[in-house]
Amino acid sequence: MTERVVVVGADAAGMSAASQAKRLRGDDLDVVALERGSHTSYSACGIPYWIGGDVSSVNRLIARTADEHRANGIDLRMRAEAVGLDLDRREVEVRDHAGSTTYRLGFDHLVLATGARPRRPDVPGIGADGVFGVQTLDDGERVLDALDHEPRRAVVVGGGYIGIEMAEAMVNRGLAVTVVTRSAEPMATLDPDMGRQVHKAMEAMGIDVRTSVELHGIGTGADGRAQAVLTDAGEFAADLVVLGTGVSPETSLAVDAGISMGRWGGLITDLQMRVFDVPGVWAAGDCVESIDLVSGNRVHVALGTHANKQGRALGTNLGGGYATFPGVVGTAVSKVCDLEIARTGLREKDCNAVGFGYLTVIVDSTTRAGYYPGASRVTVKLVVEQGSGRLLGGQIVGREGSAKRIDVLAVALWNRMTVEEIVSLDLGYAPPFSPVWDPVLIAARKAVERMAAQ
Amino acid sequence: MTERVVVVGADAAGMSAASQAKRLRGDDLDVVALERGSHTSYSACGIPYWIGGDVSSVNRLIARTADEHRANGIDLRMRAEAVGLDLDRREVEVRDHAGSTTYRLGFDHLVLATGARPRRPDVPGIGADGVFGVQTLDDGERVLDALDHEPRRAVVVGGGYIGIEMAEAMVNRGLAVTVVTRSAEPMATLDPDMGRQVHKAMEAMGIDVRTSVELHGIGTGADGRAQAVLTDAGEFAADLVVLGTGVSPETSLAVDAGISMGRWGGLITDLQMRVFDVPGVWAAGDCVESIDLVSGNRVHVALGTHANKQGRALGTNLGGGYATFPGVVGTAVSKVCDLEIARTGLREKDCNAVGFGYLTVIVDSTTRAGYYPGASRVTVKLVVEQGSGRLLGGQIVGREGSAKRIDVLAVALWNRMTVEEIVSLDLGYAPPFSPVWDPVLIAARKAVERMAAQ
Repeated sequence: MTERVVVVGADAAGMSAASQAKRLRGDDLDVVALERGSHTSYSACGIPYWIGGDVSSVNRLIARTADEHRANGIDLRMRAEAVGLDLDRREVEVRDHAGSTTYRLGFDHLVLATGARPRRPDVPGIGADGVFGVQTLDDGERVLDALDHEPRRAVVVGGGYIGIEMAEAMVNRGLAVTVVTRSAEPMATLDPDMGRQVHKAMEAMGIDVRTSVELHGIGTGADGRAQAVLTDAGEFAADLVVLGTGVSPETSLAVDAGISMGRWGGLITDLQMRVFDVPGVWAAGDCVESIDLVSGNRVHVALGTHANKQGRALGTNLGGGYATFPGVVGTAVSKVCDLEIARTGLREKDCNAVGFGYLTVIVDSTTRAGYYPGASRVTVKLVVEQGSGRLLGGQIVGREGSAKRIDVLAVALWNRMTVEEIVSLDLGYAPPFSPVWDPVLIAARKAVERMAAQ
Repeated sequence: MTERVVVVGADAAGMSAASQAKRLRGDDLDVVALERGSHTSYSACGIPYWIGGDVSSVNRLIARTADEHRANGIDLRMRAEAVGLDLDRREVEVRDHAGSTTYRLGFDHLVLATGARPRRPDVPGIGADGVFGVQTLDDGERVLDALDHEPRRAVVVGGGYIGIEMAEAMVNRGLAVTVVTRSAEPMATLDPDMGRQVHKAMEAMGIDVRTSVELHGIGTGADGRAQAVLTDAGEFAADLVVLGTGVSPETSLAVDAGISMGRWGGLITDLQMRVFDVPGVWAAGDCVESIDLVSGNRVHVALGTHANKQGRALGTNLGGGYATFPGVVGTAVSKVCDLEIARTGLREKDCNAVGFGYLTVIVDSTTRAGYYPGASRVTVKLVVEQGSGRLLGGQIVGREGSAKRIDVLAVALWNRMTVEEIVSLDLGYAPPFSPVWDPVLIAARKAVERMAAQ
């Protein structure tokens, strides 16, 4: 018998799930996907590069168009928002924004892929014109429209990777840019000793970086438009304000239907992406919490790469196959100007929070053999469990060729390797790619020596 | 009581061991290091870049000079060759080439770090003037001297990474270059389907590549100098012949002393780098065989990175600490022009040789998000055990940003991961560094699908 799955949210997670399930089950599965916005399957991570001018057209950010999905047999409905969920009757209430109608849609399976929403600090003026999030392509279009009015000064609130990428994009557009953050250093996903290097790189680009600053509000002009960011460290004039203050799971539909959420407000699923205790309901992407495989705790990490993997696993299981999403280790990479930034696993403060005893090492090395043209500095920090020597986390900051070295540590964390084991790893060596001891191995070696000395 | 260790061979492995042991034991250990050549602690891997002009001076290849070692308390004797070994009396017979004297030196511990020697095909003319190996800095100097005579045509015998790097160096020096190899494709450390891409890149550089060619000899002129390479595919005129025909362990000293060797002619050690069954004798570097952790067999892999790690482990144990060198997984990376080449684990033919049943997948992807500037093609091949899905090997060929992705597969091999596990790995994702599915993960995903279809 043909079953129907309704997918709520047609971006990375939702459409990965829809495509995979449809591919596996074909006519046996009726797939309806609902998207309240006007774009599908796009790379939100690419928005800063589009705004900064590195990516010429929004179309390049779209991995698959609505028509392509329809050609694959998916009933994709754009500007169609799921506004209500009746779990007993197994129906979704859908608002069709194009036709301004509302209808009910029955389902056998429901996939919640509702994503995340930007966290808007609860301060006066935050909703003013001229204050922008950068979560969706529609947001990106709004920022680009604002840039057409030739603003001179941008203030970015938040020093995380989106805030920093947007700051760089604004610099590339010729604006004077200030970044205000409540953290001691920008890039608080790193420990402050590593974030310090990001701070310096931002200043070298001409960005005015204000740390340990508390936001009080957005000052507006007589026209109601934002014209300043108000903080405990004074007022920063702004023709444009960008919010890079992180995101939270968008789960209001599920909450209203009585589904319970985890500590971070996200949906909780089993390994196959089935929502616990709610038969027939699945979830994937930025609206779910994941298991942090290092600490064992649930975490909320909104990243396109997880959304895709979770969507694929979900779609495989929905399609009658078997696949799991075991969790994350907290890997993230980003780029500020020519500085590459990477992290995985736990920071010092995470270790303190979950009760790991640890030691840390920091080493400086080079991305290539020191004598090979283009060799440049890279700094590697490791966080290691005391006693066992188990790797708990790693952070890397450096020039070209630095960031993806984090993958070695990510795979090591996945396999619960100790630094003694890591020292022996057979990593690729040739002068154009690495010193004879890869920087990651030098750090592990130093950690081993530190442990032996204790 | 002070002990004496005599280290035979003062390059990467020997001096890593000497330095580490001396650091740990200080005055308690008398360290004498013997080097028959005139350089110590240098990067042999850098020789092609020095010859090609990317590295300006030989001094840049020297990690630590003889005087620096001496300042660390090591009695380093240059141009001093160990010519005999008396295991019963625990003495080394040393030939001092500088003073043309011979003397005996007693030891409590002996470290054999005698390296490897180029394999010289047993054909007529191979010893002629104008035929060069590229194993030592002295070799490199001889090639550079030859280049001063403005040769026009170079023939490289052998299509492995040293042969290819030397071919590129000769092209950079303005020579017409032919590479002759007996393999079906150059870079026989890859499967031929991947080697084919290297072949094309070499031709694009203007290198004349002759595959499946058997060497018959070196033709010499009246002056006794090489002037042609003779093969079953005809004669190739050459003002300069470079041998890139691989290396064998240099173990004649140990063989003469009655120490038995492994299948590949190398010394066999335990995990701490003690030679089996020969108390007080240790070995490290290109003269030893290592355990291939994928197949379980002993292999001979002459690479500076292993030499350094083995030397460090040896020196740690000799110094009273504890460290092991568990083995290798066969990782290697190299660069031809702007093509990056990487491999780890077993090739198809290795699987056949050791009895693994396998399937393979090949995927094309990009090094960065497709829309991000600088994204370029990368091809990933995986070799996977049938049934279990365990990764057995991987090969990567592509432009900038390709090669070091092999490290993910190397760590996966080390941990005996299956492709199903690899698919879920939390690798760094951001548009400047990777598509949302890293190329390595795309390959793993395809392997999972292939297995599910079987």
